[in-house]
Amino acid sequence: MSEVKIGILGMGNMGSGHAKNILESNATGAVLAAVCDERVERLKWVKETFGEKIQLFSSVEDFFANANVDGVIIATPHFNHPKLAIKAFERGLHVLCEKPAGVYTKDVRQMNEAAKKSGKVFSMMFNQRTNPLYQKVRELILSGELGDIKRTNWIITDWYRSQSYYNSGGWRATWAGEGGGVMINQSPHQLDLWQWTTGLMPKRVRAFCGFGKYHDIEVEDDVTAYVEYENGATGLFITSTGETPGTNRFEITGDRGKIVVEDNKLTFWKLLQSERQFNREYQGGFGEPECWKIDIPVKGEGTHHLGILNNWVDAILNGIELLAPGEEGINSLAITNAVYLSSWTDNWVEMPIDEDLYYQKLQEKIKESTFVKPEIEIKTLNMSVTF
Amino acid sequence: MSEVKIGILGMGNMGSGHAKNILESNATGAVLAAVCDERVERLKWVKETFGEKIQLFSSVEDFFANANVDGVIIATPHFNHPKLAIKAFERGLHVLCEKPAGVYTKDVRQMNEAAKKSGKVFSMMFNQRTNPLYQKVRELILSGELGDIKRTNWIITDWYRSQSYYNSGGWRATWAGEGGGVMINQSPHQLDLWQWTTGLMPKRVRAFCGFGKYHDIEVEDDVTAYVEYENGATGLFITSTGETPGTNRFEITGDRGKIVVEDNKLTFWKLLQSERQFNREYQGGFGEPECWKIDIPVKGEGTHHLGILNNWVDAILNGIELLAPGEEGINSLAITNAVYLSSWTDNWVEMPIDEDLYYQKLQEKIKESTFVKPEIEIKTLNMSVTF
Repeated sequence: MSEVKIGILGMGNMGSGHAKNILESNATGAVLAAVCDERVERLKWVKETFGEKIQLFSSVEDFFANANVDGVIIATPHFNHPKLAIKAFERGLHVLCEKPAGVYTKDVRQMNEAAKKSGKVFSMMFNQRTNPLYQKVRELILSGELGDIKRTNWIITDWYRSQSYYNSGGWRATWAGEGGGVMINQSPHQLDLWQWTTGLMPKRVRAFCGFGKYHDIEVEDDVTAYVEYENGATGLFITSTGETPGTNRFEITGDRGKIVVEDNKLTFWKLLQSERQFNREYQGGFGEPECWKIDIPVKGEGTHHLGILNNWVDAILNGIELLAPGEEGINSLAITNAVYLSSWTDNWVEMPIDEDLYYQKLQEKIKESTFVKPEIEIKTLNMSVTF
Repeated sequence: MSEVKIGILGMGNMGSGHAKNILESNATGAVLAAVCDERVERLKWVKETFGEKIQLFSSVEDFFANANVDGVIIATPHFNHPKLAIKAFERGLHVLCEKPAGVYTKDVRQMNEAAKKSGKVFSMMFNQRTNPLYQKVRELILSGELGDIKRTNWIITDWYRSQSYYNSGGWRATWAGEGGGVMINQSPHQLDLWQWTTGLMPKRVRAFCGFGKYHDIEVEDDVTAYVEYENGATGLFITSTGETPGTNRFEITGDRGKIVVEDNKLTFWKLLQSERQFNREYQGGFGEPECWKIDIPVKGEGTHHLGILNNWVDAILNGIELLAPGEEGINSLAITNAVYLSSWTDNWVEMPIDEDLYYQKLQEKIKESTFVKPEIEIKTLNMSVTF
């Protein structure tokens, strides 16, 4: 096999971008072979833009029955990700899935099981994992350089959205349409990096969501999530679409220092001695271990969507390791689900969460939703400014 | 009246510093007239250091019966602050009280009532209020420049203490001796500034304390406190004595921008338009109001303890306004008490707190305490490095 014939499910903002990436990077062995979208005008756009050779499908059933592809990129609304991925695995296709993995973990777990059973190459579009900044953070932590983690603190409030953004699609920011707000739509990358860089998943979560706090929407646009980890460390994740200018500052403290990522810079305060050891041995009154403030050089640019695409194709063709294995998509989603559940129940949520309870609560939200937004057309919602 | 004869109660680290300040700043009209301490060696030190003229007392009763003073500085262990202040007010003396105001608000409320009744000049040693950085923050907020506050977030984790610090006094970090840990001992200044600069007191509190998490102590050395304000804003206060190097970063977001105080710098991101107005009026997809990043110059140095002392003396002699009115000491203490109560009950705490419940819970902690620390003498615990 020398090339991977790819079908794209969903030709919205993200799907269109992936189509362009495939065509502009043919060196990697990726070939755009088929596209599926219910909207005739999107298929027309594909034909006009990319030519006659690409197979066009207006129904998923037709696509899975007739498309001549080796793998699919799933770029449909969030709710459908797991169902479509499962169909693809059952047909023996490789899958690259847009974030989030899905809307509830019950569904995503089934997707992961189907992936495992199929033996196919499954990746998630966590393009921020290609960012050398966060790769370096992960390296500093997993190599032991930072020591045991004591606290994580991510303020990621630079996701400002105006009401007009939410009004640009009736499905936006509804329980039925997206299954959540800033946690599920804007923050999945940071939620992925939060646990990917640290290697830590929360043990329990206590979260405080503002639902429609800053916008005329029914889902959350403001979140403070406090978590506790198995090793005793604590963590905070703070996000919002109601603040501008926002902040993107990720601080991690450990037994051997502190890491801060802010303004695209990585600073590492390195202790020359373990704090725990210093604490035991020091006999003075005030004092602390010697500490060096180090500007860690971060070389190169992230390869973003194209990087993940190439990595997936490379894994299919040459068996190289995935940067963002699809099975790991459940982690950030599980945190998201736990945050909602904690806020709804005004209580602690232990992890792993009760998936059936979450599914049931979400169905109630969808059922109870009486939210109707004025749907205003914005001709082009330029997604190049976001992820 | 051209000078204020001052008596100092408690000649420990803080009291000794205040004595020096009085003597070194005689221009202000402050005169050190009397000192009270149970420890003979401390009185001996006063005599040797400051000469024969200063009246020396080894009991509070003797002091209040015989000291020829106009006002007192209270620098005893925390628990005694309100009791001693009440005695002083009853004797018609002015009071300058070390932070914290006390250990529980029930007591402190009585102190405030006694102060009011006496009509005497009552100030708290919130020396950080003399810091031009925080004065400027307060100005930006109270003048309306920042607009309605949306979120406050103070990471104040640079209070590192080793076990040897705690071992240096058997009373340190015990419920009976200090009535708390990092919240009551290290962070009162930031807890004061948190609400003084913003003009906001929490409406309810949900806090997560680690008791003896990093040290062999019974009180908290690690805190994450989430609060909600009357106007819907949220806030975080994160403090610890178990992390090094720590962080001191205070971020406040508002309808017209963002303030960050870090590394002794004040940065103001100023929106040229109210975000709330932009949100209503903007019709594009992605977009946000124009924002200017401004380095606010902060001139001068804080006058610290001496500044508060001079201000108090000046208020007594010339009736000028107090920078840190004593009655405001209850605010930071009320937050502290709410944080403990929330952590102990693992639940929300509404403010103002149930003072009787807090008092009762604290008595239980004191009673149940079986904590015995090895008392190790450190000859001089140099307090000049702290506040």
